[in-house]
Amino acid sequence: MSTAKLTKAINRFKVKKTNKSAIATDNVVGEEPLEIRVQSTVDDSRLAITMRTPGNDLELTAGFLWSEGLLRDREDLISITSCKDPNLTPEEAENVVVAHLKPEAPAILRQLDRRFMISSACGICGTTQIEDLVNRGIQKVEPCRIDVDELAKLPEKMKTQQNIFSKTGGLHAAGLVAPSGEFIAVREDVGRHNAVDKIIGFALMQNLLPLSGYALVISGRGGFEIVQKAVAAGIGALVAVSAPTSLAVETARKFDLKLLGFAREGVATIYSPEFA
Amino acid sequence: MSTAKLTKAINRFKVKKTNKSAIATDNVVGEEPLEIRVQSTVDDSRLAITMRTPGNDLELTAGFLWSEGLLRDREDLISITSCKDPNLTPEEAENVVVAHLKPEAPAILRQLDRRFMISSACGICGTTQIEDLVNRGIQKVEPCRIDVDELAKLPEKMKTQQNIFSKTGGLHAAGLVAPSGEFIAVREDVGRHNAVDKIIGFALMQNLLPLSGYALVISGRGGFEIVQKAVAAGIGALVAVSAPTSLAVETARKFDLKLLGFAREGVATIYSPEFA
Repeated sequence: MSTAKLTKAINRFKVKKTNKSAIATDNVVGEEPLEIRVQSTVDDSRLAITMRTPGNDLELTAGFLWSEGLLRDREDLISITSCKDPNLTPEEAENVVVAHLKPEAPAILRQLDRRFMISSACGICGTTQIEDLVNRGIQKVEPCRIDVDELAKLPEKMKTQQNIFSKTGGLHAAGLVAPSGEFIAVREDVGRHNAVDKIIGFALMQNLLPLSGYALVISGRGGFEIVQKAVAAGIGALVAVSAPTSLAVETARKFDLKLLGFAREGVATIYSPEFA
Repeated sequence: MSTAKLTKAINRFKVKKTNKSAIATDNVVGEEPLEIRVQSTVDDSRLAITMRTPGNDLELTAGFLWSEGLLRDREDLISITSCKDPNLTPEEAENVVVAHLKPEAPAILRQLDRRFMISSACGICGTTQIEDLVNRGIQKVEPCRIDVDELAKLPEKMKTQQNIFSKTGGLHAAGLVAPSGEFIAVREDVGRHNAVDKIIGFALMQNLLPLSGYALVISGRGGFEIVQKAVAAGIGALVAVSAPTSLAVETARKFDLKLLGFAREGVATIYSPEFA
């Protein structure tokens, strides 16, 4: 069982309850920016900044690159390191990672492309968002064979492994469940999308992609961005503790992703596949 | 009382419960991309795409521009309209807004600047994020005079006004409370940050900024980005139903924002001001 390695994940502050005069100490979940840089023989530039809970930063970076369609395969990613800039303070250096990529990786090409982008026609909608995924080459996922009654119980099982949540009550969790029904990784983060990227990065680095027959469990709601990450990783089922959105349901149905929402106390609502 | 005008906010899907064989119809919250374009006499370009619940899009745009420091004052924003591109389908046109700005507005300058940006030194951390706010000219906020016991009760009061949540269980709410203690606006969205931007855009368009002595109530957690938006709007108190993050607490203390978390059933934890 792989558990999350977390640094600076918990901070302590003196606080007061409104109905009490005494001052107490409270655990608060850590949040810091992470800058993701991409580097190759032809480029060295800033790709994104995300607010995250420190820890598992290399997994987060790998998962982010994969989820955004910025890698064609595992081979595009040569390595991920911390930033070696000697001008950085140690605190700053902890918040910067550099992904070393092949020069023909989509991430590098997109960065180079951006510099010459002036303006583009407007026009987006949910349908075009789904079409974009198809155009990226994302296929329908393989079915997850875990019984829906078992899937509905997964969030309760995951709770026992949410180390930081139990101390701070302040963050989201994502768990990866093998076709056998066993959890193989749980990751936590202030950002729901980051927790999922950490899981996908873990899978990428373990050479487990595509995650055919696997299930992903998330502690919160299931929006489009989470469903997009799941199908891009080939996951067969997504189980959310809270509600999905309309675009999440449409996307899940399009890619044959089994989507369960409001999974609580062993009962869930099945939003995908489509019911006639 | 201003209530949210919402279009396409609720969708209906046929679903099934894991413990029942019957198929039922369920309300699901709407989620669509919104593209924000900025236009002036010197520029016309794409600024951002956000996934949001359709409705109050002009408020969302105005609030986003303000929160990001892309307007110096109300005057920088000439108007916000839908995109008039005749090539767009009606569905697409609903998801694009154009903010018409003065050519010297920070949003326009930043867009022009980006085209010449090649690479920049790395180095960020929580401290620099807070410094950035100071450098943007954001001042310490004026105190909110509403009693903390009253502040702690605000989330329960807001629940009665969460129209879409009660139908879908699927989205976040943000509420603006005047110094008198009365709610003057409640907005809902799949994105916590969007709900807050809709509130701030509402206030901007009503010429209420800075919101000295006002309180902001949010249905979820209080992270850095929410605190940043609150202080940029001059709000005096932020009341969250769930946990804050470390950087949220530090930022609130820096700008004298009163920060309450875990506000449930009239009791809350006070994270800011600082307790010795």
